[in-house]
Amino acid sequence: MSGTAEVLDPRVARSRAAVLAATAELLGEVSFVGISVEAISARSGVARTTVYRHWPDPAQLMADALASVITACPEPDTGTLRGDLTVILRELVATLSRSATARLLPPMIFAAEADPAVASLQQSFSRQRRLVVRGALERAVARGEIDADFDFELVVAMSSGSLFYRRLVSREPLTTAYADKVAGAICILLGAP
Amino acid sequence: MSGTAEVLDPRVARSRAAVLAATAELLGEVSFVGISVEAISARSGVARTTVYRHWPDPAQLMADALASVITACPEPDTGTLRGDLTVILRELVATLSRSATARLLPPMIFAAEADPAVASLQQSFSRQRRLVVRGALERAVARGEIDADFDFELVVAMSSGSLFYRRLVSREPLTTAYADKVAGAICILLGAP
Repeated sequence: MSGTAEVLDPRVARSRAAVLAATAELLGEVSFVGISVEAISARSGVARTTVYRHWPDPAQLMADALASVITACPEPDTGTLRGDLTVILRELVATLSRSATARLLPPMIFAAEADPAVASLQQSFSRQRRLVVRGALERAVARGEIDADFDFELVVAMSSGSLFYRRLVSREPLTTAYADKVAGAICILLGAP
Repeated sequence: MSGTAEVLDPRVARSRAAVLAATAELLGEVSFVGISVEAISARSGVARTTVYRHWPDPAQLMADALASVITACPEPDTGTLRGDLTVILRELVATLSRSATARLLPPMIFAAEADPAVASLQQSFSRQRRLVVRGALERAVARGEIDADFDFELVVAMSSGSLFYRRLVSREPLTTAYADKVAGAICILLGAP
């Protein structure tokens, strides 16, 4: 905290508390304004009127722009659950570490709070990845590697979630070795080789 | 995508592609501007000059405001790992579902990208929670419930991470039952009763 020496004066303490409360309130209310059509026009060389004509709704433009850089998750079929999860999670580490998606994830998460088009895009992005993990788990059941009685959504959230957590929450580096440890832990959890 | 019928005209297609690329670039560059001192002054009833005097750096004001609403994670000691994890994860579900922290988490994650003061606050917030989980795991080792050879950071990321994932990425509802399932999965993973 800045200026902590001042808090002994009750009037100053009240002012500070009022400012902090107002700032916290306003932070929770702010919707994503992001970038201006002027900036987009200048960067792209496309006239503002043309931008407005194609995207009367700026939220839809933002959603379309995000969709244009987000890449689909690969669908490996290596023959083992551990192999498939390793490929999927290593790719997620790469995506979260250094791609355009990595850079766009925090503004996307923020924009999704206020903007249904962005929220819907984000959900379809995570749904595609979940289906890939589901495919890997179903093949493992078919091969007899694991039982069919697992909670699918739980496995997805624990595997992908642990990588997103390090990228977004604890802000720790993501590595290939970390992806492999998560894949190994999921195999232990499900009793897979 | 809007206006997909138009992409047959190559000139229109080029314009659209240029706008989408420029928007994606700009979204990745934008830093958090958030809220104005004018708005904070109006909401709090504190003069702008006073706000500037206490917080010459707006980033520090934002960090202090976030710190003022973030609550510390409780430190349960129920006597079992499953009991402790259940309390910790149920509290995280509550925090991520309906508190001031839940509302402020997306702007905080976004702001942390551009702003070291916010990033540092966010890391200290997640560090406190990790220490609580570590305490629960160490007591479980001391009681002989689990072996000491687990990867502590992995367990934290898989447990808390799966809840953050549902809140921020897949945007699915969080429930007490879900917290309990995650606690149960961690116990299976670690071989705890």
